Amino acid sequence: MYRSHNCGELRASHSNTEVTLAGWVQGVRDKGFMIYVDLRDRYGITQLYFDEERTPKAIMDKASKLGREFVIQVKGNVIERASKNPNIPTGDVEVVVSELTILNSSLVPPFTIEDKTDGGDDLRMKYRYIDIRRNPVKNSLIFRAKVAQEVRNYLSNDGFIEVETPYLIKSTPEGARDFVVPSRMNEGQFYALPQSPQTFKQLLMVGGMDKYFQIVKCFRDEDLRADRQPEFTQIDCEMAFVEQEDILNVFEGLTRHLLKEVNGVEVDKFPRMLYDDAMRLYGNDKPDIRFGMEFGELNEVTQHKDFGVFNSAELVVGIAVPGGNAFTRKEIDNLIKWVKRPQVGAMGMIYSRCNDDGTFKSSVDKFYDQNDLAKWAEITGAKPGDLVCVLSGETNKVRAQLSALRMELAERLGLRDPKTFAPLWVIDFPLLELDEETGHYHAMHHPFTSPKPGQLELLDTNPGEVKANAYDLVLNGNEIGGGSIRIHDKATQAIMLKHLGFSEDEARAQFGFLMDAFEYGAPPHGGLAFGLDRLVAILGGQETIRDFIAFPKNNSGRDVMIDAPAPIDKEQLDELNLKLNLKP
Amino acid sequence: MYRSHNCGELRASHSNTEVTLAGWVQGVRDKGFMIYVDLRDRYGITQLYFDEERTPKAIMDKASKLGREFVIQVKGNVIERASKNPNIPTGDVEVVVSELTILNSSLVPPFTIEDKTDGGDDLRMKYRYIDIRRNPVKNSLIFRAKVAQEVRNYLSNDGFIEVETPYLIKSTPEGARDFVVPSRMNEGQFYALPQSPQTFKQLLMVGGMDKYFQIVKCFRDEDLRADRQPEFTQIDCEMAFVEQEDILNVFEGLTRHLLKEVNGVEVDKFPRMLYDDAMRLYGNDKPDIRFGMEFGELNEVTQHKDFGVFNSAELVVGIAVPGGNAFTRKEIDNLIKWVKRPQVGAMGMIYSRCNDDGTFKSSVDKFYDQNDLAKWAEITGAKPGDLVCVLSGETNKVRAQLSALRMELAERLGLRDPKTFAPLWVIDFPLLELDEETGHYHAMHHPFTSPKPGQLELLDTNPGEVKANAYDLVLNGNEIGGGSIRIHDKATQAIMLKHLGFSEDEARAQFGFLMDAFEYGAPPHGGLAFGLDRLVAILGGQETIRDFIAFPKNNSGRDVMIDAPAPIDKEQLDELNLKLNLKP
Repeated sequence: MYRSHNCGELRASHSNTEVTLAGWVQGVRDKGFMIYVDLRDRYGITQLYFDEERTPKAIMDKASKLGREFVIQVKGNVIERASKNPNIPTGDVEVVVSELTILNSSLVPPFTIEDKTDGGDDLRMKYRYIDIRRNPVKNSLIFRAKVAQEVRNYLSNDGFIEVETPYLIKSTPEGARDFVVPSRMNEGQFYALPQSPQTFKQLLMVGGMDKYFQIVKCFRDEDLRADRQPEFTQIDCEMAFVEQEDILNVFEGLTRHLLKEVNGVEVDKFPRMLYDDAMRLYGNDKPDIRFGMEFGELNEVTQHKDFGVFNSAELVVGIAVPGGNAFTRKEIDNLIKWVKRPQVGAMGMIYSRCNDDGTFKSSVDKFYDQNDLAKWAEITGAKPGDLVCVLSGETNKVRAQLSALRMELAERLGLRDPKTFAPLWVIDFPLLELDEETGHYHAMHHPFTSPKPGQLELLDTNPGEVKANAYDLVLNGNEIGGGSIRIHDKATQAIMLKHLGFSEDEARAQFGFLMDAFEYGAPPHGGLAFGLDRLVAILGGQETIRDFIAFPKNNSGRDVMIDAPAPIDKEQLDELNLKLNLKP
Repeated sequence: MYRSHNCGELRASHSNTEVTLAGWVQGVRDKGFMIYVDLRDRYGITQLYFDEERTPKAIMDKASKLGREFVIQVKGNVIERASKNPNIPTGDVEVVVSELTILNSSLVPPFTIEDKTDGGDDLRMKYRYIDIRRNPVKNSLIFRAKVAQEVRNYLSNDGFIEVETPYLIKSTPEGARDFVVPSRMNEGQFYALPQSPQTFKQLLMVGGMDKYFQIVKCFRDEDLRADRQPEFTQIDCEMAFVEQEDILNVFEGLTRHLLKEVNGVEVDKFPRMLYDDAMRLYGNDKPDIRFGMEFGELNEVTQHKDFGVFNSAELVVGIAVPGGNAFTRKEIDNLIKWVKRPQVGAMGMIYSRCNDDGTFKSSVDKFYDQNDLAKWAEITGAKPGDLVCVLSGETNKVRAQLSALRMELAERLGLRDPKTFAPLWVIDFPLLELDEETGHYHAMHHPFTSPKPGQLELLDTNPGEVKANAYDLVLNGNEIGGGSIRIHDKATQAIMLKHLGFSEDEARAQFGFLMDAFEYGAPPHGGLAFGLDRLVAILGGQETIRDFIAFPKNNSGRDVMIDAPAPIDKEQLDELNLKLNLKP
């Protein structure tokens, strides 16, 4: 037995107990005649005490040579401290050491093992095994495990069966790029790693599993944006004989359970918002509704004057910034610069100050009088002391721009409190989305999403108008997950694939097995998937997922700790019937 | 709402309730004036009843056209049946249908959806989504989910944290072949899929996670033997500051918990057997101890006579077959043929019949008298009525042969009762194993296993003798899992890799990150991994894992349902900087 107790366990009630502890040396305070060592493990920190009077000289000498992150084992007697440390649970006691074994030494660690470390991101990634010793990372991983376990308990208690679906599957041209895996036994052929278990969970419904879930790794070979990972974890679910309402209820229940068990927060029934309304009111299909600042469309009250910028715009739309009239001219100029950055892309920003006396002062006073500006304030909900910010242009673009501005201002004004949770269902998503570059429609959710009843015919005449029973769960401005009611008959699936540009042969080659399955008694079904990494980060009150992943990859998809990916031997390539074809 | 109840739920107490059910048509008995339909879902079967008197004609007509596996929804009234069916939980009632909706039709399924189906393996794999509707497969998957959930609950309650380790890692030349994944973003480089999360779990111990577990997919690109899968699931665990005893206790507790919760079986403390004893007594490092038939070594009592076969043998060893004297001459001849099959490889078999009157009749009476044969019986534990079977030859080979014979006879004699559970720890495995083909030693467990204290020096002089704190859990003759105490210092790891034939550069390139980690305060640690597929199959009383996997691959590593692996586009290859290099 390496230890009788862990380092977070001892209390005053353990006084006069002989204990054995093991852990890492967090720090040493050597005062010559007495030495204090903070001993750390996953569970906490316990103070060790050595002094000239009671500690044998050999042990005293050994203790004086301990360095940070040495791994040691000690035996000793627990005593109450003279000066207690109320900041840690073990702060009432210390262990007077009688035996000391150095289990392993340590080089000086490349950064400090403290909540606020001096290690930069690169160093922390390279030495992730040291970084994990730090409380913020360690606790994030423990938090993640708790969330996953709560998900499993909740869904299992609700009759869901966790079924493992395969990782070595088949590449499909739809969606993001697949990671592929060459097969040695099937020459010239490749498996693909799943982007999601979508088709398998549908086949489980055809197979009568009724309620399926899985917490599962998924893979996308995409150019990595910030805070994306090539491998990520999904809570994946599917139910048979359900309508949208059934699914929303189950996963609203799950989310409420998590908020209660993990965060101690009780939330009301989740509001629901039509996709079209989300776009109109927030310019965004994942609105953060923890604060107001809803969009006010101003075309009617701006386009009757001589201001050409507005007159020529498809959409003129504004938001009220609470207390924004306090912004200096310079601050407003900086905001204008901010919206003109290429990442946002606005041509400019018009504003109207709402003075405390009820008057207005705008950047377009030449064109708009006090009555006009009063209407702006009314429509955007601005009160005296606020600032109305107005953007204009092509509808989709200007909505995205104003949404970015809204989020930026909320951030600056401290309106995005990570301890407040505002979940929201966004429903009635369009079935298809126009790719502006190619002019083609592609599936907004995925090709297995069912159009709303009676809208199948619209696919030919007005594809952009077709709505689906597709829904997203949004939490604090982040998409936590989404899903849909699926197609469950072969004919509809064939029509859908045709509209997505698959030839009959391609559809057969890629999805023949699914369409065959639909001919052998497929029940109506639907489901959803939550992104676990993001969910855990948000529940944990963080914006970035990286510390909730034990061994994340960097933005080039590299694991810098193990130095992967890496070249492989020629023999390995030969066995796989492959040759490198490097760019010159 | 598609249903008010499921098909396994209704009882006599529901009589006179209006219900809505949905499910699959298991069968139709159409008697013209009345029609019975068995409606099936995951939860059970409920009898639907239509008759000329009470059912509108349109519905009667529709019902008469229902085929097997049609998906339907019905509304109706629950009544007690006149003739009850005591074989199913819903057998007291039937539903008199008033509304019938066909949700989906079905082609005639390629095999029957019954416990004993008429579908062969190939057909069942191709239509796995239909096969899953059958009770044996469905229940196996539900059983698997329950086992996994119990594992998670037990380990979580014991302070283990489930941590997800990465799937896209680095190829290592040790062990089985890796599946590799070409990286698009890192030209000419490859990830590998993990054969196990071994190094990551060790890094988690270096990172202070203390107690880790994970239920995780692992991958091996091996030529598939029967009942192996290229992707398989492990219960993977690691603990810091532990000795072998701590680990055995935790996982004995877990296994006992599973046997109790899942099988309702209480077992005593698991016996422990030295590897050397297992080989001596059972010729096998995973002995089935549900029955005796221990080996008796007969060299001393056989090599003083003129029987050259035994005299020249390194080992002469026998077993007593209970009741084997009842075998006819022909049955014994067939046994001899059986041991001579290439899969077993014995040169022959000597036997001695133990007659009820205490005399013996052997196949080598020319060389051995009654006294000799009495000693054979004594040493092998044979009683009157038994048969002593004796093999001879080179120790390792003859042990393997006799072990095969022992298992075959136990199978034939019905001694391998799947409802009896006999767990066993086999401990003190050798550190290294001689590869007879190459003459090189390789790691018996893996290169991270620590030699027993004080045996490091033996590596130079007598590598085959070095023992490790390595252990396997064996259940009913199957290896459920195994593990070891690991090396946790850089110097020992370097010596070990050198002995395994790694140059310093190779060791650095492959395992540099781990050896670096050992320099920053690595605690003593160890762990183990259970094979979930096998564990679940054995707990489920089955010999084959395939029905406990939702979508298994065949012996060529193919998923015949989705037809994977498959060729990929040239564009995909180009993006990955690869060319096919097919054998001419």
